[in-house]
This record gives sequence, structure tokens and C-alpha cells, in this order.
Amino acid sequence: MVAIREHPRLELNIIATASSILDRYGNVADLIEKDGFSINDRTYTLVEGETPITMAKSTGLGLIELASSFARIEPDLVFTVGDRFETMATTLAAAYMNIPIAHTMGGEVSGTIDESIRHAVTKFAHIHFPASEDAARRIIRLGEDERNVHRVGCPRIDLVRNILVGQKIRDSFVEMNEEGVGSNLRLDKPFIVLSQHPVTTEYGKGEEQILNSLNAIKRTGIQCVVLWPNSDAGSEDISRGIRKFREMNVSAPFRYYKNLTIEKYVRIMDNAACLVGNSSSGIREGAFIGTPVVNIGSRQDSRERGENVIDSIYDTDSIYNSIVKQFNHGKYATNSIYGDGYAGERIANIVSQYGTIDVQKTICY
Amino acid sequence: MVAIREHPRLELNIIATASSILDRYGNVADLIEKDGFSINDRTYTLVEGETPITMAKSTGLGLIELASSFARIEPDLVFTVGDRFETMATTLAAAYMNIPIAHTMGGEVSGTIDESIRHAVTKFAHIHFPASEDAARRIIRLGEDERNVHRVGCPRIDLVRNILVGQKIRDSFVEMNEEGVGSNLRLDKPFIVLSQHPVTTEYGKGEEQILNSLNAIKRTGIQCVVLWPNSDAGSEDISRGIRKFREMNVSAPFRYYKNLTIEKYVRIMDNAACLVGNSSSGIREGAFIGTPVVNIGSRQDSRERGENVIDSIYDTDSIYNSIVKQFNHGKYATNSIYGDGYAGERIANIVSQYGTIDVQKTICY
Amino acid sequence: MVAIREHPRLELNIIATASSILDRYGNVADLIEKDGFSINDRTYTLVEGETPITMAKSTGLGLIELASSFARIEPDLVFTVGDRFETMATTLAAAYMNIPIAHTMGGEVSGTIDESIRHAVTKFAHIHFPASEDAARRIIRLGEDERNVHRVGCPRIDLVRNILVGQKIRDSFVEMNEEGVGSNLRLDKPFIVLSQHPVTTEYGKGEEQILNSLNAIKRTGIQCVVLWPNSDAGSEDISRGIRKFREMNVSAPFRYYKNLTIEKYVRIMDNAACLVGNSSSGIREGAFIGTPVVNIGSRQDSRERGENVIDSIYDTDSIYNSIVKQFNHGKYATNSIYGDGYAGERIANIVSQYGTIDVQKTICY
Amino acid sequence: MVAIREHPRLELNIIATASSILDRYGNVADLIEKDGFSINDRTYTLVEGETPITMAKSTGLGLIELASSFARIEPDLVFTVGDRFETMATTLAAAYMNIPIAHTMGGEVSGTIDESIRHAVTKFAHIHFPASEDAARRIIRLGEDERNVHRVGCPRIDLVRNILVGQKIRDSFVEMNEEGVGSNLRLDKPFIVLSQHPVTTEYGKGEEQILNSLNAIKRTGIQCVVLWPNSDAGSEDISRGIRKFREMNVSAPFRYYKNLTIEKYVRIMDNAACLVGNSSSGIREGAFIGTPVVNIGSRQDSRERGENVIDSIYDTDSIYNSIVKQFNHGKYATNSIYGDGYAGERIANIVSQYGTIDVQKTICY
Repeated sequence: MVAIREHPRLELNIIATASSILDRYGNVADLIEKDGFSINDRTYTLVEGETPITMAKSTGLGLIELASSFARIEPDLVFTVGDRFETMATTLAAAYMNIPIAHTMGGEVSGTIDESIRHAVTKFAHIHFPASEDAARRIIRLGEDERNVHRVGCPRIDLVRNILVGQKIRDSFVEMNEEGVGSNLRLDKPFIVLSQHPVTTEYGKGEEQILNSLNAIKRTGIQCVVLWPNSDAGSEDISRGIRKFREMNVSAPFRYYKNLTIEKYVRIMDNAACLVGNSSSGIREGAFIGTPVVNIGSRQDSRERGENVIDSIYDTDSIYNSIVKQFNHGKYATNSIYGDGYAGERIANIVSQYGTIDVQKTICY
Repeated sequence: MVAIREHPRLELNIIATASSILDRYGNVADLIEKDGFSINDRTYTLVEGETPITMAKSTGLGLIELASSFARIEPDLVFTVGDRFETMATTLAAAYMNIPIAHTMGGEVSGTIDESIRHAVTKFAHIHFPASEDAARRIIRLGEDERNVHRVGCPRIDLVRNILVGQKIRDSFVEMNEEGVGSNLRLDKPFIVLSQHPVTTEYGKGEEQILNSLNAIKRTGIQCVVLWPNSDAGSEDISRGIRKFREMNVSAPFRYYKNLTIEKYVRIMDNAACLVGNSSSGIREGAFIGTPVVNIGSRQDSRERGENVIDSIYDTDSIYNSIVKQFNHGKYATNSIYGDGYAGERIANIVSQYGTIDVQKTICY
Repeated sequence: MVAIREHPRLELNIIATASSILDRYGNVADLIEKDGFSINDRTYTLVEGETPITMAKSTGLGLIELASSFARIEPDLVFTVGDRFETMATTLAAAYMNIPIAHTMGGEVSGTIDESIRHAVTKFAHIHFPASEDAARRIIRLGEDERNVHRVGCPRIDLVRNILVGQKIRDSFVEMNEEGVGSNLRLDKPFIVLSQHPVTTEYGKGEEQILNSLNAIKRTGIQCVVLWPNSDAGSEDISRGIRKFREMNVSAPFRYYKNLTIEKYVRIMDNAACLVGNSSSGIREGAFIGTPVVNIGSRQDSRERGENVIDSIYDTDSIYNSIVKQFNHGKYATNSIYGDGYAGERIANIVSQYGTIDVQKTICY
Repeated sequence: MVAIREHPRLELNIIATASSILDRYGNVADLIEKDGFSINDRTYTLVEGETPITMAKSTGLGLIELASSFARIEPDLVFTVGDRFETMATTLAAAYMNIPIAHTMGGEVSGTIDESIRHAVTKFAHIHFPASEDAARRIIRLGEDERNVHRVGCPRIDLVRNILVGQKIRDSFVEMNEEGVGSNLRLDKPFIVLSQHPVTTEYGKGEEQILNSLNAIKRTGIQCVVLWPNSDAGSEDISRGIRKFREMNVSAPFRYYKNLTIEKYVRIMDNAACLVGNSSSGIREGAFIGTPVVNIGSRQDSRERGENVIDSIYDTDSIYNSIVKQFNHGKYATNSIYGDGYAGERIANIVSQYGTIDVQKTICY
């Protein structure tokens, strides 16, 4: 967004929707405005329930709302990111309305419903900005015109790089105990980060899954930063597990956060003894930062990964042993498979040089 | 539907939605009930307007409604057909709700937004029933597991075959003048059929497009059966063109139909001197029947076709000349590229033999 | 709208929705723009079907969309008119969002679901602008604070007055044969106007109801201007009746219009031998113009009326006899029960002088 | 519901919607099923955000969903309760679909948007079951036919009576420390109950409002049962206030509950030294039980009340002083203004004796 805003031939419009405007999920839209962006539209699209059925309904409501937003803003190009259900709504609204679509983070492989959404979005998108070489090859194999596939790296790595080189630091690291709830952290001692989201295709198993992880970490005796899950179907199961664990372990050295700024999150990844869970950030940003990661379960299945990741099944012993291994190894060297930190500028330049985009797509075989 | 209903190990449920329950579009749901099926749910999902924006909103409303229907019916497998916007809503609702999806008519190539929808649906579907060999190959190239790709032919060809061999005839051909409006037809004389739908990616040009076709047919002096368009964005443009033509040409030997039963439509295709327009039926069913077809514009671009099709641009002269060519050629031999008339039985048998279907998909490369 | 736009202390915003933006219903929004207004938002809210169930769904979709529009426009006061289902959606969206509501045409009595909607809207509205003294009294009896009840007359009478005194004539009366379909009219000869809408609480009986009226008029042998119905539940029944009548009576001296400009409609009411049907315009505008009216059925039950109205049941003989009576009587003297033609200015002045409006309402007993 | 289910001439159908099916609000639907009822439909209708705009959208989504449910169930009569936003959605869906409506708890006066919703619902309802004499008179003054106004008492008082006489006790009172979070309660010592909901027409002030109450209670040094707020707009403000207070007062003798069963809630009201907040239960059920109540702010303005209620403004001192007064007074004698505990049987009997209900309403003046 920074690169687009600062490009002389581009104009940035922002629509904030789904969990990005809700306090329960950290209200990312407010953070965006604090960074000096203005938001054109805020639309409430989440149907409460965090079940498979509300995930479908939220996508439907998103489609209805985004169609109105697009009709008002009349964008020349709609950017959408990754593989979430709001990505699907964004993509469909733009596609039906004959607005060209640019897609970042396409072509990757993972578990959960995201796997299908990601490739379906590729079949609607007109310009592709994959993060890795592997993803770029896959997009072309999906029948996309290679002239529209531009491997630029993941824009999130740009953020990570900026934060690590000390620019754009909004939050001081020491304030970690002013947010969240639970025990106070000592950041001069080793700590673990837990970030585990629901697996939509394993709906109903989240409570057990998160309790395995929490108990494994508790057994290490190391401090832990626990993050609440995203709003996918099954979120409430994970949350319930965390709440139960917390009530039964009030004196454990665990601190719980609804949402961290990206600055804080990156600094924490940079200093953590180990990141545990199934967040894609461990694999993607973790590769660049060198964070030791214990990746649990199927959510990141088949996602290309660096040497910083050890996989574990949903089992307390297995998770515990993997954490110990990572703890003994320590930090890894940086790896650019998901980008080198300059994706934004590349994207803005490429987009600015496109001529008229033919909205009619045709598969290349 | 007949094959599934009659299979001892399968149970059929039907949800009627979008244009299928509206009088304006011929109320197909009522016809289905007349054929002895019972409909489990009727849900109104079309947002009126027939514009790109209402197409998006209708898909959104469809998602909201279908999620409720699926929650109630709890299907083991959801069947969806082809590439319409209700297909996308059906697919997404099932996918989010972890219900396996079977898809017929995937893997083909065409113009309009259908092209993107069709391939996106493939990326969500668990079992594929393409109509042609070419389509089957394309689905596999899209990264689907070939064990789940079953080339069975198009189920619509089954219907065509049944009608042509004289079974299941509900309507007599001679009743054509009891329906529709306009001049009376003489079915013992040559006649043309016009079936032309909006091209969503050329939104706003429909009135001119249909007037070219109507004027070309008028110039031939041959009688014409004119069908109203489907409910895609741009439908109102086509309809306005037809209304204007009709008011200015009240004595032309043209008769206008909102909807024909499939039986009547097939008999008309079987007897027509030529089918004009951009309906996929000319290319698909037309290949099997041997109907001479003049296919206009981009809507069927790249769709595999038999020798019965002559393509024309949106131009009165070009359309006129192509009609004359087809008129001189006469009927073509039957061609099975889109099926031999036994798809339904194959589908029912294959589905009945599937074990548990893993809802988690993974791309095969 | 003219009076508000021209008032120095007021700023006008317009949201066009429901049937006002659809070609099928005459696209009133386009006419509004031709009159020099700019429209802030166009939102598609009609779920196709024209059944009781789609009426509920359209109100629901309207609520969803209007809430977004209000959030963007942030009006100080929302104006809503009368008793249609979009009126209910407008009212609820504003009420939940703590935006004060002004309501015109409240306090009247009629049949159909409009009767309940109208009084319910009164219970949400903060400022009331009833058309008649009778309506004003009724609003106060409903527990509203009489300081907020301002009898100003019906704003539609302003339009009527302007047209009749020759100002703001956009359309010439002689162009009637350039629009619509059917037989040509001779406007120097007597003619009848038929305007009959569905009665939502008698859903399913519309086709028979309209055929009674059409046949009664046909029997008189007088020419007829037939108007298509509004989009309430049951609209398709009325339309089907009209289509059937037309196909069977192609040579009858009837001409059919989807929508007439208000200018044409007023001139036609001013010159008609008789207005037949159940439109409120016969009773309201008809009182001011002096048009002889035959009002059919329950739709206007209990609505206050002048001497220009004869009531009839749904019966061909009864309707025929009433038309003959009105034909023999001829035009009536003007009557101001629904206004004297200066409502707009009064409304703009009153609104401009309101201080802060307390959104919290309390019933006055 | 018990009385309807057990009546030989009536059949009960239940649709669970809005917060009743969400864990966050205690999942009342699950409790209903535990009581032996079966639920016909569960529909997710809450759009997340708890803002004025999402309240409007949730009503819209509710209308869309309930219309489908009613189409499927085809009820002869729809029961709706009170004045919540789901009440409005229920009422409109039934009214548009020509289904007669019975309404309990109409005719009362209060603050917040509930005041308008309640009276608007009265204008749609066909049969009225007010709780108090005062409310019955008000419904008749609103123009309803007195033959359809039946003062039966509030059905919630039936539940209260049953619980107090010892029937239908599902939960033991002693289990209070097995639920909720916070300090353990000693139920043999005096305790206060706090139940305070957002005031939609004072949106944005909830955090300050609840903190006044919490601090006043803290000052008394008495134990407190704190209940989370309902899902009206502003709910998140109240919740945030509670969370902040809790984090800063971990050792205070306060225990926090997301939802209590009605049995527990009634027992707590029966034993509480004082109920503080703005819940209607203090005024309604409290009158029957004799609970001392401190009612804060405008939410219950003008609601008829017994001698058990002392009103307070939003001010820590004022609330504190009122609590002390109530603490010194102790329990009050029972009062039947809101019912004597036999409303259910009366309602079932009256409804079972109704003949055909004319869906067309007309105001009685």
C-alpha cells in the first residue's frame, strides 16, 4: 500500500471489511489509519458464529456489500491478497463487474479451504504477483498467461525488512506488558510464541488441538506469548480451549494477546526461542527472519518451506520434543524463498506500466 | 436427476433457485415437478437489475440462502452444473461447509465470465464429470487428481437422445402456436431458431448485437422462433432489442417464446433449417443432433465444436451470409464429442461406488 | 425535493433504490436526473419474484444496503414517504442508526400491508408531515407529540398544481402514441385510465381482479390507457392478466404503458372521462384535479375521500355500471383535502427551523 | 412454549436465531433443547460489530432468513416477544407473508430504540398479549381492536413462579462457582447482581456508564455477580468497560457470567441484596420476586414499576447511595403488575379458540 500510494501514476483506494474493522480482531483498519492512510469504505460483512455456515454467509454478505463499494469507487484494478474468504468475495464482486483483478500470494499450496480458494482466485485474476518461484510456476501450470505472472516476493517480507532495519518503528518492544492479559513477560529471558488457527476442514476439533499445544509449551516451563485465532470457522473452539487453559493455569508464565501490531509481531518473531502453531507467518516471514518454528498439523501441508521449520502432529509429546529441538538449535540464517523485502516497489512499477487489461480471460491450453 | 433418483443406493434432493423459480424465465422448477420430482427447497436469490452489480449481489444472496438449505438438508454430495453464477454460489456454500462437490461440464473453454467461473469451480470440486475428452484433459492439467476425473458425456445429451428416440415426450410439437406471442408458425416450412444471450464482459452492447441478428434473419424471409435471453448481466439490453424489433415488425413471420420445454426445444433443433445466436446448445446438443448453427460473437470462443458450426461476427451481412450457407448445406451427421446419451447412468454408478470423500483438496503439482 | 434543494439552509441528498432504478418500472431515477437532481447512491434491493416472500427479502436487502448508504452520507434527517416496503427499510435503517426521520403521508387509512407499514413508520418517525387534517389527528392519537405533527398537504399535489398551471412541462401531451404499445389513442375523444395494483393481503387473486376491470372497460367501448402495476407481491398476477387480455383483444382501443412521466399522468387524469382501478392517486390527486374515479376493491378501504370517487367491488357488472355513472357525471370541482399545492415550501421551512432533534422517542400516554 | 406444546389443539414450532444460537451469548437454543423442545430452524442473523449499522444489517439479514423459514414451516400464527431487533425482523417477515402475528409484552413504555420497535410491532400484530393493565390500555389507544387485546401477564413471570415454588429446577444454586470467571462467591453472604445493557440511543457512552456502576458496587465492599451485556449496538463498549475493570480489580469479590440459566438467574434475584443496572428484569420479574432494584439511566424510562425500584442517574455516588438504601430496606412484598404466573395457559387457551384471523388490519379510528 505504501508503494502504490507513493507511485506518481497510481492512486490508492482502501476498502476495510470483515475482521479488519472489528475490535474483537484488533481493528486493523484503525492501525492502517494511524499509519496515515485514509479508508474509503468500511463494510461490516462478518455474520457471527464462526461456523462453516456463517463462513459461507459472510462471503455472501461480503459480495453484496463489495459490489456496492466497487460501483461507487469504480476502481481500474482491484488488489486482493492470498486465500481468505473475504478474498473470494472481493474477487467475485470484481470479476462479475468486469474490473481487472491483481492477486498476491497466489500459486502456493496449503491445507484447509484456503487451498481451493487460492487456486480459484487465480482463475479469476488478471495479474499475478506470486511470492516464490515455485508458486509462479504453479500459476502458469494452472493455465495462466506467463506474461501476467510476476514473481516479486511477498509484500509482507517488505514490512519485515523495514522493521528489522529499524525504520517505521511505531511501537516500542518494551510495552508488551501494557497490552494483553495474563502473567507479565520478561523479554530478556527466552520465550515461545503460540499462533494457532482453526483448520476449517477439521471443523470441531480445535479445542483439543490447541490444548495439546498449550500443554506442550507449559511442560517446557518457558514463557509464552499466546495469540487469539483468526475468524475462520472453528475459531470459537480454539478460543474456548485457550480460555479453559487460562482459567486452570492462572499462574503459568503465559500472556494472551488479541492482536499485535505487525511491528511487535515481527520483533517477537525475531527474538522468540520458537514459534509454535500453524500460522503461515512461521513459514513465510519466519524463513526471512530465521525464526525456529514448530508447525503443527495439516494447515500448512505442502507449503514450500525453509530449513527453519520442524513439523509436528497434533500430539503433546511430539510438540514438546520439537520445541526442545528448536530451542537447542537456536536461530536460523535468513532465506529469501518468500521474498527479499522489495515486493511493493516491484508491484507498483509493474502495475503502472500495464496498458488496457482485457477482462475476458481464456485458459492457455 | 432421473438416473440418480432411480439408483438404489442414491437419494436425490433438489434445491431450485435463481431463475428456475421465476415465471419470467419459464419457471423450470414447475416443469421439474411435472416430471414427477419433488423439490426440497425453493429459494429466491435473484436481485433484480440484470447488471454486473446485481449479478454479484445475486451470487451473494445465493450463498446466504444455499448455506441455510445445505444446513437443513445435510447432503453427502452436492451436484452443480457448468458455469453460471448460481453454480459459483452453490460451489462456495458447499465448499465452506465441508460438503463434497461433484461438477458436470467442467474443463471446457468459452468466452464471458463463465470461462473463469467454470475453472474456479473445478478448483473446488472433488469429483469431475466432463462432457468431452478435451475437457477431461484440461481438468487434469488444472491440477486435479485424474482418479476423480470421469469423462461421461454431457447429461443434456441424454435428454436429447431420449427425446429423439421418442421416449418421454410430454409435449406435442404441433402445439407451438398455443404458446408464445407473434405470428403463427408453419412447421411444415423451413424455419430458423434464434437464441442469443448477453455477453457479460461486453456489457452494454446487447441491444445492437441482437438487432444485427434479427435483421439478418428478417432479410432471409424465413420464419423464426425467437427465444428470450437468460438472466445474466445485460439481459435487459437484449430484451429491449427484441421488444423494439417486434414493435416495428409486427407482421414479420417471427414468434417469441419466454421459455420452451426441453422437449420442444430439441424437436425444434432437430427440424430447424438453422440455429442462430450464441447459445452453447448449438455447439453441444447441436453436434449430437446435427443442427446447422450460425454462432455469433465471442460467447462460445474456444469451445470445442463439431463441423455443424459456422462462426460469424456481430454484423448483419456476415450473419446473413452464414445463414444462407447453412441453409444450403442442410442437416449434419451426428457427432458424440459432447456425449453419446448415457452420461446419467454413468454418473449415478460412479458416485454410488465412491467411498468417503476427503474434503481437503490438494493441487497435484 | 425542489423546495429542499432551493432552501438556503438545507442540503439535499438522494438515494435511489428498489423499483426506481429499474427499466422494468420506468427508471424514475433517470427521470429525476433529467430534472437536474444528482443522485448520491443507487442501490439494487429488489429480490425478483414479486411474491410475499420476496417482499420480505427485498425489505431485508434494502435494510442492509441503506445502512451502508446512511453510514457514508451521514444525513441529519432522513425523509421517507408513505407506506411502501422500501419505506419500512428506510425507516428501520435510520432508526437503528439514531438518525432522525421525517415522514410524509402518514396517518392515513387504507387496505393492504401498507396500512400496517404506514402506522409503524409513524411510531419510528420524529417529524410528521401528514397530507390531510384527518391524518394529522390520527397521528396524534397514535401517541405522537403534536408539536411534531405538521399538516402541510401532500407534496404530490404541489406537482399536480405546477403541471396544471403550465409550469415545468417536460413532455407534450400529444406524444402519447410515441410511447407504450397497443392501439393508437385519439386524445380528442373520451378515454378511460386503468391503474390497478396488487392487494398484498389478497395474494393470488390479481389475475381475476384485473380481468374484471379490463372486461368492464372493454364493454363500454371507450378507449383506455392501461398502466402496468407496481412491484408489490402479486404484481406478476396482474401483469399476466393484462398480457392475456391484450393477446386476446389485439384490436381493442387500448394502449399499454409501463410508466408515464408524472406530467403526462397528471394531464391524462385532467382529461380522462374516468380513472378506474385502485391507485391512491385517484383519491388523492384526483380530489384536487376533479377526476371522476371508480375505485375497485379493498386497497383504498377507509382512505378519506372526496366526492369524485365511486367505490365498486371486484365484479365486471358493478365496475361497468360505476364507469357509466361517472361518464354521465363528468368532471368534479377541485377539493383540497389532500393539499393545496404548497406542501414542499412548508416542509422545507419547518425542517430548516428545527433545532436538535432528540432521537429518543416516547409515546405520549 | 410449555403451554402451547401441551395444548391438544396447538402445535409448537421453534425458530432459533440472532444471539440465541451463539456461544458468546450463552446459546439459549441449546438450553431450550435440554428442556425437551425440538428446534425447527437455527438461522445465523447477527452481523458482527454491535454498532448501530450492524443492528440495521442484522435485522435485514434476519428478514431474509426468516422469510425462508416461514415459507418452509408455513405457520398459522407467528409469536414474537417484546421489542428487540429480531422481533422487528420476525414481525415484518410474517406481515409481508400474510401470516397472523401474536405479540407478547406490547404496550409498555421504555427508553432506547426498543420503545419505537415495540409500538411498531403492535401496529403489525393481530393478537396482543400485554403483561400489565396499563400496557393493555395503551395498545387500545394505539388503535387496536380491543377484542384482540388480552391482558394475561408476562410469560416470564410463569417461569419465575415455577422456579420459586420449586418445580422444574434444572440447576442447583450451589454450582455458581463452577461457571463464570473471577473470585469465588459465598452465597451465604449478601451479594449484589449487576445487569447493565447498552442504550442504543446513547451509543458510544457505554464504557463510562458501566464503570460508574462497577465502581459504586466496589465501594460497597459487597460481593457481586456481573452479567455480560446483550448484543445491542454498544455492547462492545460495555464489555470493554467490564474487561478493563476486571483486569484492574482482579482481587475484588466479583464473579463474571456470560449467561445464566433462567433458573439460576431467578434464584439469584430471589436471594440478592440488590439488583443493579438497567435490565427490564429488575422491574418486571423483580416486582413479582420482591427484589430490591437500583435502576440506572434512561433505558427503562417510563416503564411502569412497583415499589421495589429506586432510580439512579449514571453517577457513582448516586448509584452507591441507592444501593445502600436498598440494602437497608431488604426484600419487598410480591406485586403482580406484570403478571401472576399463569400467562402461558391463558395464551394457549385464547389462541386455540380463535377462528380465522383476517390478516388485513385497520386502525380503529
